[in-house]
Amino acid sequence: MKNLIVGQSGGPTSAINSSLAGVIKKALQSDKIHTVYGMVNGIDGFLREEISVLDRFSDDNRIRLLRQTPSSFLGSCRKKLPDAVDNSKIYEDIFALFEKYNIGYFVYIGGNDSMDTVCKLSQYAKTHNIDVKIAGVPKTIDNDLTLTDHAPGYGSAAKFVANSVRQIAMDTRVYNMKSIVVTEIMGRNAGWLTAAAALANTPSFSPVDIILLPETVFDKDKFLNRVNEVMSEKNSTIIAVSEGIKDKSGKYIGETGSQLMNDGFNHAALGGVGKIIEEIIKSNTKIKTRAIEFSTLQRCCAQNISKCDYEEAFNAGYKATAHILDGNTGFMAGFVRASQSPYKCEVNFFSVSDVANFEKKVPDNMIGSDKMSVTKDFIDYALPLISGEPDLIYDNGVLDFEIL
Amino acid sequence: MKNLIVGQSGGPTSAINSSLAGVIKKALQSDKIHTVYGMVNGIDGFLREEISVLDRFSDDNRIRLLRQTPSSFLGSCRKKLPDAVDNSKIYEDIFALFEKYNIGYFVYIGGNDSMDTVCKLSQYAKTHNIDVKIAGVPKTIDNDLTLTDHAPGYGSAAKFVANSVRQIAMDTRVYNMKSIVVTEIMGRNAGWLTAAAALANTPSFSPVDIILLPETVFDKDKFLNRVNEVMSEKNSTIIAVSEGIKDKSGKYIGETGSQLMNDGFNHAALGGVGKIIEEIIKSNTKIKTRAIEFSTLQRCCAQNISKCDYEEAFNAGYKATAHILDGNTGFMAGFVRASQSPYKCEVNFFSVSDVANFEKKVPDNMIGSDKMSVTKDFIDYALPLISGEPDLIYDNGVLDFEIL
Repeated sequence: MKNLIVGQSGGPTSAINSSLAGVIKKALQSDKIHTVYGMVNGIDGFLREEISVLDRFSDDNRIRLLRQTPSSFLGSCRKKLPDAVDNSKIYEDIFALFEKYNIGYFVYIGGNDSMDTVCKLSQYAKTHNIDVKIAGVPKTIDNDLTLTDHAPGYGSAAKFVANSVRQIAMDTRVYNMKSIVVTEIMGRNAGWLTAAAALANTPSFSPVDIILLPETVFDKDKFLNRVNEVMSEKNSTIIAVSEGIKDKSGKYIGETGSQLMNDGFNHAALGGVGKIIEEIIKSNTKIKTRAIEFSTLQRCCAQNISKCDYEEAFNAGYKATAHILDGNTGFMAGFVRASQSPYKCEVNFFSVSDVANFEKKVPDNMIGSDKMSVTKDFIDYALPLISGEPDLIYDNGVLDFEIL
Repeated sequence: MKNLIVGQSGGPTSAINSSLAGVIKKALQSDKIHTVYGMVNGIDGFLREEISVLDRFSDDNRIRLLRQTPSSFLGSCRKKLPDAVDNSKIYEDIFALFEKYNIGYFVYIGGNDSMDTVCKLSQYAKTHNIDVKIAGVPKTIDNDLTLTDHAPGYGSAAKFVANSVRQIAMDTRVYNMKSIVVTEIMGRNAGWLTAAAALANTPSFSPVDIILLPETVFDKDKFLNRVNEVMSEKNSTIIAVSEGIKDKSGKYIGETGSQLMNDGFNHAALGGVGKIIEEIIKSNTKIKTRAIEFSTLQRCCAQNISKCDYEEAFNAGYKATAHILDGNTGFMAGFVRASQSPYKCEVNFFSVSDVANFEKKVPDNMIGSDKMSVTKDFIDYALPLISGEPDLIYDNGVLDFEIL
């Protein structure tokens, strides 16, 4: 019998621990596994032999608490492994530790860099005929992992964005005056999460009129024209802006040398791109404008875990573990959309070498022709992912969590 | 038969529409009332004859949706009435409109300024022998209304603060490095909401170590000593800071002429007091520090409505309406804590002249001796107010609201 080790890496999400719970659940059930270990602080902590036995999760109540715990229960790291050809030492160290702890299976939950780690380690194992199976479970609020229909973590972050935008819009419209709120949303190179602001719009209340994605070029004049157009019809609006929007020269708005910095908006850059957009509106219109940065809450707000994400993240971890225990290696679990209506996604397995280091951006068919909105294709794609609400456990008014 | 009109005023909360629902429910049940009107945008909109008939809420499903709708359903205003002695015109206008619409009862839901309006209008009615009864229902996330044990709206905002701080702390601790998050919280003169960050601490996970209230003097050196003390024992911490903290000269931190501005932190002032505290830490320690401003979400996040607040806000509106229909005037509904364990608050009625224009601050017995924490007295006071979660209605993953 071998042992299994599971780790988490990269930025936290509200669903990553559901995937962890799925891995642990399946591993504890298996008669192929003796001990289930957790890497503390990812591969980085593992190199310092920081590991934790995860026996406690044979208790289903603790599994349930783990699933509603936002952010990486096992801690995280941001480490990209060097190429094995020129840097064999770190690979030798990792596999020596795998041997020391009798590890036969390693499951890594994370985003692009983590899949790169899975790819490199599984190739090293194959090349060196080492019998350690290695697999990845995706997670990213950015939703920029390729091949999989979407990544666990995205649906819950999108639900936070949609509901927060909707609630802020309710707050903004109470006074009898024109007002704009600019919401700054994460996603430096891919606009999936910013696009989710459109999910706040319903037939009875549709507050979001302008969405600025990193996939499009920010054009100040066209933007101001659109702002004026919207505000000639409405008393208040919400503008969703990705932290990663760029000007036509390809520079990030707010980056030294970008056109807007040259135009004198550098003081606003201290407050991020939302603040720059606020300043652009204020200096060109007389409309009360306020920028709100969604901060880390967008990736760790358990009260916005979508049931879809909660179930899928668990399943991805559970089925990846079943697949690795069947002897497979070098794969990432992911989703294939089997049906759009009713929505149905099935877990599938992709070769991790086809996934690592590619970035999936919002495609043209999901971006409006004005380049400041999203299309029905996007709504159809994203809406099922934010649906449903799991029952959360509170203790004296605060969410109860599993703490390592 | 007379008509009843209800209005909302001041800053929004997530519970103010529960109070509105309570008023409407009781008024629609009463055989003393012909029509239930809503003032649109408070007394200000009423003067422009912006009113709305609220018949639709005879449907209990709509009452339920109204109760989970954050922010003022009827719109709001920030208007303080002038003294009647020198400015009789506006009073004559208001009472002429009351007569025009056959208003016998006016219920105003709001904070300090709104209670001032209730006070002035009810005194004018008495002085001029006009038979219009006028009452107030409290609401404020600041919890600074006097006489009442607490104000509706506070419990839900406090729940947002406690849960958000707790979730951000989970996000902050994942990397194997020292880090601090400074959370900036509303409450310019009273620190009740900032103090609620302490409710994030539980025996298993206690992330909040420093709480800076406007009731205490901010002392940079003592603060930095405390930061170093905390960080010598922990890897990460959360600091909760009120937007209204002041230096020993009584100036707001960030205000021109305050000591810290003279010390060169003026660039950070653009980002608010949280950013200034971040800069103070960064320039005196090597610890990674990030400021997060909770923005308007703290007063409009329906996903943090506490059941206690939800029920009490409704009851305050319902019972205030019953009391006004019994012929009473010039009062504010409020709470008296009948029992601490188990928690029990009862609705009581206070003369609004005793309430208007007083500000209730966090008392000494609730502030720690280090002036950077709160005591068990505060926890015992506030914890019941954030307890319980009402069932919320979602539609396709987003909260459903009543829209005027």
